Amino acid sequence: MRIFGVDPGYAIAGWGVVDYKGSSFKTLAYGAITTKAGVKPERRLQIIYDELTRLLKLYKPEALAVEELFFNTNQKTAIVVAEARGVILLAAQNLGIEIFEYTPLQVKQSVVGYGRAEKSQVITMTTKLLGLKEAPKPDDAADALAIAVCHAHTGSSRIAAFFN
Amino acid sequence: MRIFGVDPGYAIAGWGVVDYKGSSFKTLAYGAITTKAGVKPERRLQIIYDELTRLLKLYKPEALAVEELFFNTNQKTAIVVAEARGVILLAAQNLGIEIFEYTPLQVKQSVVGYGRAEKSQVITMTTKLLGLKEAPKPDDAADALAIAVCHAHTGSSRIAAFFN
Repeated sequence: MRIFGVDPGYAIAGWGVVDYKGSSFKTLAYGAITTKAGVKPERRLQIIYDELTRLLKLYKPEALAVEELFFNTNQKTAIVVAEARGVILLAAQNLGIEIFEYTPLQVKQSVVGYGRAEKSQVITMTTKLLGLKEAPKPDDAADALAIAVCHAHTGSSRIAAFFN
Repeated sequence: MRIFGVDPGYAIAGWGVVDYKGSSFKTLAYGAITTKAGVKPERRLQIIYDELTRLLKLYKPEALAVEELFFNTNQKTAIVVAEARGVILLAAQNLGIEIFEYTPLQVKQSVVGYGRAEKSQVITMTTKLLGLKEAPKPDDAADALAIAVCHAHTGSSRIAAFFN
């Protein structure tokens, strides 16, 4: 199963692609889509949409795993991140890729086994699980890979989950 | 100048198209794009994007005027409305249509002449200014037309605004 993880963002959106077979991972690629302050909002959204579309066409994942948004203290940021998330969902939907959403709690629980884990613990465990020599950079890419790992763990136990 | 106004929304997004020449308006069409609860979020965003793209191709406006979002008390709603707004901006940007954003205050000030006007006053004045026999329905369409009127008033005084 090929999974494309996305950590939604406006100035920077992390992404990472993994193959999950049996119970082992292969990391294909990761990175971040960045858009610059000062560029018109609609153009920034278009860059995110176009770049994500290009990556999805390149890696042809079976699933896109993305984090759910929660309000933070910065309202302005929350709105633009949600706008970016809208075009991220649209890009996957337009290519017929199935979308799975996870809360930060689910990601932490699935990767570290503990819902209140620190961000650094999530990155350390993701690096270990993926067998990478060092932590993926930027952190947004590491977060995206963590979301992909969460989907691998959750997706493969989906039938079991029906009985929980 | 042909202006396409949008009142961004997720379950219902209002739209309206007007021609503004000299200082008189001609209303071409208005309506609302609706998406149903229970449909997958990414599909709802796709419906909004596709339907708006169809309307923009049909009416070929020179400008898209859209309201800025502010947080309301319902966080869940604010996030999905922002996601919808993201795909609305993308649709216009992908067709090369220039986008103009206005705050609710600017719309009220421009249409009613008073920033704290009631919603009903905005609809009444919009109906009057557009020379319509009755208030456009649903309210979301009337709101979208008000935003278009705001852009007509603001756009034509843009040079003056530089000196304010």
